[in-house]
Amino acid sequence: MTGTNRLNKVAIVGGTHGNEFSGIYLLRKWRDTPQLIERGSFTVETVFANPKAFEENKRYLDCDMNRQFGADDLNNPDLANYEQSRAKAINAQLGPKGDAKTDFIIDLHNTTSNMGPSLILLQSDAFNRQLGAYVKAKMPNAVVVLEDHVAVHEHYFLSSISQQGVIVEIGPQPQSVIRQDVLDWMEEMTGHILDFVDLHNRNAVPELPASYEAYKYHETLKLPENKQGERIGMVHRNVQDADFKALRHGDPIFTLFDGQEVCWEGDYEAYPHFINEAAYYDNNLAMSLAKKVTVDV
Amino acid sequence: MTGTNRLNKVAIVGGTHGNEFSGIYLLRKWRDTPQLIERGSFTVETVFANPKAFEENKRYLDCDMNRQFGADDLNNPDLANYEQSRAKAINAQLGPKGDAKTDFIIDLHNTTSNMGPSLILLQSDAFNRQLGAYVKAKMPNAVVVLEDHVAVHEHYFLSSISQQGVIVEIGPQPQSVIRQDVLDWMEEMTGHILDFVDLHNRNAVPELPASYEAYKYHETLKLPENKQGERIGMVHRNVQDADFKALRHGDPIFTLFDGQEVCWEGDYEAYPHFINEAAYYDNNLAMSLAKKVTVDV
Repeated sequence: MTGTNRLNKVAIVGGTHGNEFSGIYLLRKWRDTPQLIERGSFTVETVFANPKAFEENKRYLDCDMNRQFGADDLNNPDLANYEQSRAKAINAQLGPKGDAKTDFIIDLHNTTSNMGPSLILLQSDAFNRQLGAYVKAKMPNAVVVLEDHVAVHEHYFLSSISQQGVIVEIGPQPQSVIRQDVLDWMEEMTGHILDFVDLHNRNAVPELPASYEAYKYHETLKLPENKQGERIGMVHRNVQDADFKALRHGDPIFTLFDGQEVCWEGDYEAYPHFINEAAYYDNNLAMSLAKKVTVDV
Repeated sequence: MTGTNRLNKVAIVGGTHGNEFSGIYLLRKWRDTPQLIERGSFTVETVFANPKAFEENKRYLDCDMNRQFGADDLNNPDLANYEQSRAKAINAQLGPKGDAKTDFIIDLHNTTSNMGPSLILLQSDAFNRQLGAYVKAKMPNAVVVLEDHVAVHEHYFLSSISQQGVIVEIGPQPQSVIRQDVLDWMEEMTGHILDFVDLHNRNAVPELPASYEAYKYHETLKLPENKQGERIGMVHRNVQDADFKALRHGDPIFTLFDGQEVCWEGDYEAYPHFINEAAYYDNNLAMSLAKKVTVDV
């Protein structure tokens, strides 16, 4: 590693969605015990992204904040609702996107889906490939999801403000609930990520496995709808909670409210995740599908 | 059975809480296929209790509707917010409480807790004791909870409008999600209840077991708080999802955010339920505790 890709400034963001409690409660804990997130080779700040939504016990007031960080949107003064305004404020604090003063952002999220402790990487450069390997080595139940289908600066996620950024996504946890298992997983995974950044900075990353399995985002499926766009079915009971289990052509995937089963017609081995995520109902989304890939470290 | 306790008018209520989706979707299904809830010996109507909260994807707008059916509150014209007004309207439609035109109300609810298919009885007269036995005989994974610690007319639940009424409480399901397993359990349990009422009316209740196990509500525990009333802990991981598993003096029950464990100091064998229910956070409640009892049929 050269000095040029040292990560000197790290930010940990919680409460980007106001009813995803784990990150919000961890921020409180770290406010009282900051030594838990301090490492020798970088400074770390914490950001409570959407305090108003938390106050109102909702995901958001006006729109999903974690979709407001596209470069054009950040520069569009007409986008002025609460989350769009908070996005601009956070971009000013941590960014600006494209030339950010923050080198690395960890954005903490929960899902109602049975995804366990998942690390979502927005790119697959050497740093991210090693980071995934390190976290999986330290935390064998961790899953790595690659959302590298677009370049980082084209993402609209909060963690795309900085040149390097990840999403920590832990479930299953109902909205507006704190589960200890989920909180513990989030704290553990965040600690491993901070350790890795510190090792990276000190040129001390240990030997890692030559490769590992990950899930590369491919497409998003909608819930069954009628011609009027009304929901007419739900996730099939065989698929519920089966995040990261293979789905093959012909497998039942939805059950219509009239009892009829709908099978998946895809032509590849798909790995569903974000299955039946509560927040996705806004857009009638049922789940994301990934392909299993091998990441060479 | 004598003719005097025939139940001629039955109401099925869904969406008393706007983000408990199973009942709301079942009402839609039964609107299209009413024969599924019709039986020979009574009329049945359906009521969508809180459509505004459903529209806004919230439990309630102003206050918890399922606490607004105390007799004094129903008669207090000063209680005029949305849920209080809906409560009066539903009382006019199905009641009035104390002299109700409806003989039996089934109120459909979901919980984020791991309670499985639970039938909550508000009294333990012969009818309810038999109903519990019948449902358990037909649905071996069903649990019967007795909330008969006060008289029916003293309850503030919607289903206390009529002389006979029950709550069907199915989980675990995150708020604002439809799980097929939970939906299927709710539909099955409701069907058995309707069958039983029909058998009761026709004097044709089959032979039932002489007794069964149930859980009698005893007390409600709060989450750990500091002197300022702020939440400082969560449900212990050993207790999470362990609804209806025995809790004994000295068992860990909470974990404080600083890592410390809190043990239960009670002097009886308790059966937690509604463990970590999302909606209870409003009042900082952690769970209900029951005692296991034997119900003689």
